[in-house]
Amino acid sequence: MRKCIIRVPCSSANIGPGFDVVGLALDMYLELQVSVTGVSEGQPLECRLSYEGEGSDEVPLDASLNLMTRTAHYVLLCHNKEFPIGTQLHVKNPIPLGRGLGSSGAAVVAGVMLGNWLGELELSKERMMDYTLMIERHPDNVTAAMMGGFVGSYLRDLDAKDLERIEIPLSEVLPEPAGGVDTGLNPPMPPVGIGSHIKFGWAPEIYAIAIIPDFEVSTATARSVLPAAYSKKDMIFNLQRLAVLTTALTRSPPVPELIYSAMQDRMHQPYRAKLIPGLEQILQSVTPTTHPGLLGICLSGAGPTILALATKNFEQIATEILRRFSEHNIQCRYEVLQPAYDGAVCTDL
Amino acid sequence: MRKCIIRVPCSSANIGPGFDVVGLALDMYLELQVSVTGVSEGQPLECRLSYEGEGSDEVPLDASLNLMTRTAHYVLLCHNKEFPIGTQLHVKNPIPLGRGLGSSGAAVVAGVMLGNWLGELELSKERMMDYTLMIERHPDNVTAAMMGGFVGSYLRDLDAKDLERIEIPLSEVLPEPAGGVDTGLNPPMPPVGIGSHIKFGWAPEIYAIAIIPDFEVSTATARSVLPAAYSKKDMIFNLQRLAVLTTALTRSPPVPELIYSAMQDRMHQPYRAKLIPGLEQILQSVTPTTHPGLLGICLSGAGPTILALATKNFEQIATEILRRFSEHNIQCRYEVLQPAYDGAVCTDL
Repeated sequence: MRKCIIRVPCSSANIGPGFDVVGLALDMYLELQVSVTGVSEGQPLECRLSYEGEGSDEVPLDASLNLMTRTAHYVLLCHNKEFPIGTQLHVKNPIPLGRGLGSSGAAVVAGVMLGNWLGELELSKERMMDYTLMIERHPDNVTAAMMGGFVGSYLRDLDAKDLERIEIPLSEVLPEPAGGVDTGLNPPMPPVGIGSHIKFGWAPEIYAIAIIPDFEVSTATARSVLPAAYSKKDMIFNLQRLAVLTTALTRSPPVPELIYSAMQDRMHQPYRAKLIPGLEQILQSVTPTTHPGLLGICLSGAGPTILALATKNFEQIATEILRRFSEHNIQCRYEVLQPAYDGAVCTDL
Repeated sequence: MRKCIIRVPCSSANIGPGFDVVGLALDMYLELQVSVTGVSEGQPLECRLSYEGEGSDEVPLDASLNLMTRTAHYVLLCHNKEFPIGTQLHVKNPIPLGRGLGSSGAAVVAGVMLGNWLGELELSKERMMDYTLMIERHPDNVTAAMMGGFVGSYLRDLDAKDLERIEIPLSEVLPEPAGGVDTGLNPPMPPVGIGSHIKFGWAPEIYAIAIIPDFEVSTATARSVLPAAYSKKDMIFNLQRLAVLTTALTRSPPVPELIYSAMQDRMHQPYRAKLIPGLEQILQSVTPTTHPGLLGICLSGAGPTILALATKNFEQIATEILRRFSEHNIQCRYEVLQPAYDGAVCTDL
């Protein structure tokens, strides 16, 4: 019997000015306990799925519907393989869904690693990124989750033929019974090197406090409130701050006023404030001056989670943000996290 | 008799995606030889000015009209001082004017350093940046010229009162005889900390080849061809590449394909192509594949100078770009430069 454990970190995208650009992997891990018994249980895709933790009341346990196993199936089919007979998968997920902490990105990365392990494909992480980016077109969360640490990423300009291929949605990529139409053909293998990324440094003193409200914001809704165009002035504002931020966060000791000002954003946070009661006041009034130790504060991904970077006084900072949310009748919990430098890891047992 | 030499490097702004954000100081220096004799020669502002090199046929030698000396005068007046009796200034300038190599930025930085030295003000470089930014509102070239190396910079959000003060143009800041109306009041002293900047790293293998065409593009013209707004897609394109670029250029050995793709821009180069015949073809067809050693290629500032970053084969790369410009009947010269890591320096003699 083969066994492994796959661990994939949660992640926070944007970090203020870096909309659709930067991602930070944090040490809260989606965990997959995988075993292959060789004895069929007659399950969909030959995979029995159990699940505990966040999302256990909504995540489908039918492997032909579940995002992780569908993704693994896609990777396997690309290599003319299927799930091994008697695959068993137990998922432990502490990452809250729909809160801006990269839960679905972690699921896709976990699925690609699962397919790689089940099929004994021995793909590199770089190559696994191509499979990941076939399914999740926004590279920020998935690149952080796969590669670890604080990363910047983008999709390359591919030629027309490649673009045609990679824009096929998952539902069409995967044949029956996984949602698509069975064309009798294997799904398209990803082009090599769809994405490009770089790992930034990170000053070890910097922790991330994730303040997680008790409601969800869908990525689609959070994208729908954004304008289609931006003024040159706002564009330059974000470019300037992002350029400073990625380097400022590498410097030890961190300089609070430099980081705080470099975490300002005009591209998504002002527009998303209407979806997240209290956000605007929190961004404006919780500062390094009012809260020593605080470096900067931003929306995590599309929200509603708020990410506060800090070197100390984590509880005081979190308590103040919790208090401000509670004025809007929003309950929250918080986690003090550190970067997950190694990203996704698969360990044979 | 007091004497000093002030040296200020030329600089290249933008470097592809970093429009109005990044600047790179390069080792071609504007030099001021300064002496104070104590004997009046009855010159305007008590300053005799001589000049050799680029711009010698157009730069005014009347100290009340010259940008460098007017800037020095402004700094002095802020401290209730004037030019010392019998100031002599000899300028040696190798930086071509109006070509996108930061000649006017270097002049402003030199003027601020000159005022600081003449008035024995002992201002820090950080504080001198405030004076510089009162006169030149785009921080990219001047921050590189003052601080040296490869820098990202921006103006802080100042409160309304401060903004009112810093938007006064130089002609009104300086009383007669330096161009403005003498109100009997000293000009407004700059707020502290107008700008914010950070110095990025730079891989020592990377040289900058500046290919300098024999015509000028005014910054005003180069700005007038830009659109007022950008699509979200183009904005994200530049944000992603800039985030990768500033870190990619620090890595040894440099990765050509990462840097080349991160130097792509959609914010200014496509619009400025119409002002610079041949630019579009050069940007598209001179690549690391066609020219080993090349890392990336961009417009220097507002152009027309082209900057090619490379680790070797400088002459071949320059010759190819010269050849392509010559097809448009444009003659060029080129310089192989390295970063000026120390920026502006004032040495007492």
